[in-house]
Order: sequence, then C-alpha cells, then structure tokens
Amino acid sequence: MQYPNNIKKKYSQTINYSNRGMDLESLINDTNQYYLSEDIALIFKKPTPIGISEAVYTEHGRIIKNGYFKSPSTLDYNGIYRGRYIEFEAKETQNKTSFPLANFHEHQLKYIKRVLQHGGICFVLIQMNQFVYLLKGEDLTHFLNENTRKSIPYSFLEEFGYKIQEKYNPSLDYLKIVDEIYFKGETL
Amino acid sequence: MQYPNNIKKKYSQTINYSNRGMDLESLINDTNQYYLSEDIALIFKKPTPIGISEAVYTEHGRIIKNGYFKSPSTLDYNGIYRGRYIEFEAKETQNKTSFPLANFHEHQLKYIKRVLQHGGICFVLIQMNQFVYLLKGEDLTHFLNENTRKSIPYSFLEEFGYKIQEKYNPSLDYLKIVDEIYFKGETL
Repeated sequence: MQYPNNIKKKYSQTINYSNRGMDLESLINDTNQYYLSEDIALIFKKPTPIGISEAVYTEHGRIIKNGYFKSPSTLDYNGIYRGRYIEFEAKETQNKTSFPLANFHEHQLKYIKRVLQHGGICFVLIQMNQFVYLLKGEDLTHFLNENTRKSIPYSFLEEFGYKIQEKYNPSLDYLKIVDEIYFKGETL
Repeated sequence: MQYPNNIKKKYSQTINYSNRGMDLESLINDTNQYYLSEDIALIFKKPTPIGISEAVYTEHGRIIKNGYFKSPSTLDYNGIYRGRYIEFEAKETQNKTSFPLANFHEHQLKYIKRVLQHGGICFVLIQMNQFVYLLKGEDLTHFLNENTRKSIPYSFLEEFGYKIQEKYNPSLDYLKIVDEIYFKGETL
C-alpha cells in the first residue's frame, strides 16, 4: 500500500465572478477550501453536533431515522495557521445599527475567553451593512466586560473591527487580516 | 446581561473506580472532560459529519428524518494545549500481532503529514493488547514511507510508541506523555 506524498491538490472550484448572493458561511467555506488546496492553512467548519434518537442499518450502512441538532458550546471553525491554533465564529445580521449578542450562545462567549487564555487566536467574523468585519476576541471580551448592553453598536465594529475586502479568489481573505494583527512584522 | 468571568467548573463526574470495560473513545472523552474542567486543555471530539437527505420542522425545532454518516478526512480530536495546536486519532484493534492500517481512511494518513508540516502536534492513540500507545505522527509517517505493509507490527508499537498508564482520574492521561515528548524540559 502506497501513500503518495503529493498531498497538495489544485484548486478546482467552478469560477465565480461575483460573490454577490453568497452567504457568509459559503464565503468562508470557499476561502477555507482555497487555503487548504494552496496549503496555506488547515481550517475547517466543525460538523454540526447531532443527537441520534433512531438509526437503522441498511445495505448502504447506518442511516439516521430520527436526529436532532444540538447547540454548540464552542465556535464554528477551527484549525491551524502558521503553527498557531485558530478558532472563530461567523455571524450575520440584517440590523443596521447594532449587532445583537443573542446571536451567540452564552457558552460561546465564555469559550472565546478560554481560547485566548490558552494562547489561541480567536475572533468573530461579523457580516453587517454589506461588510464583513473581523473582531478580535480580546476586543469582544473587553466590550462584554465594560457593557451590559445586549448588542454591539455598529460604531464599535467600525472602530475596533477590521474590514475584510471581498475579492475573487479567495472570496474572503481573512488570513490577510490575521497576518496584519497577529503576526505583525513576521515574515512567512 | 452579565457574562461571569468564573468559567472554571468543578469536575463532578460520577466516581468510577475502574476503567475496565470503558472503550477507548469513552476513556478519551472522560479525560478531555477532566482537562476542560481543570482548565488544562481545550480538546474535543469533532462531531461525526452527517449528510441530511430529509429534515422536517416540528414544535421542537428542526428534526432529521433521513441522514447518513460521511467518512471523515481529518482526525477525530483537536484543540489547544499549552498554546499549541493538537490533533489526534484514536483506534482500537483486537489483533494481537499487528495493527491493520485499514483502520485509517487514506485521507487521514495524508492529513497527519499536513498537520505536522503546519507545526501542529499530531499523533494516534492505539489500543492493542490491553494497552494504549501514543504513536507520534512523525513515527507513523516514517513507517508509511519505509514500508509497503498493510499493518503495523506490534513490535513497532512497543519500540516507538509511548505506553499510557490508565489510572483513576483522568482515566487516560495522554497529555502527561505529550509533556514528555513535545515539551521536554519546559515548565508549565
């Protein structure tokens, strides 16, 4: 049995000249696929945790006949980039003036602090007013510690968030921002 | 809305004086829960990836009526420990003389190399002949490069693997071995 060493595959996604209409999750998955194929980072969306109440065996293997979605206590995406642990969450809102914190599970907000304490890179990507912002976990935590508000004003995102330019390929190059803010002055 | 800073919870699992009969996955989940509650590491089993063919909305939310299991291309567990990215797979065999490589998906073996190339800590935990061995991804990769065998002889595991002593709490303290082999001479 041979395991070929050539593990780098060419990126072969259908050409998409516009990202308009792609939701945030699709933009991120698309971008992570690009990072993977170019061997830039290994970052994946975690599968949604499922509870299984009923499963049956068929000729095609085990099939779920009754399952339900569990609510996650960690963040949606994690992986490794430039030797560092990275974990983040992605959220969208249609609100124009503030981002409702109810978009997070409370466990997730606590968990962000823990990832930071353990030395990970942790942030949220927030799509709002047609832009995607990277908000560092440290800044989000600071906001939560200093405020009792149930939402983050858009002005806070504009001041402390880093705007990510959507482009062709990858469609949402958030690691460019990660380079700037977490690897200042370091060369790849 | 307040987010308490006290995120460290006491470990309150039912006392289990013997690990006999616990399968490898249970031992690891139990141990990861201990690491989490003691704030030692944030390591989780990734949810099994599921494909959904049919889902319905009920008063309890969205319910899966037809789902199937996808085969994973990454490893089962990942997270952060002492600031480092860590990822590993756990496998058991009833064989006495060799560990069949067919226990891995071929994607997984390639993926181990990639995690190592990106600077992660990567290994497999293999339960065999009533012991659990940690085999470094580097040693597994070396074996795969040098051999065309379809299984790893037990003697290889005994020579290159690190035996993990099962104990009471945590039941499978694999991070003790990780300390020894990846953080030599560093203090916590």
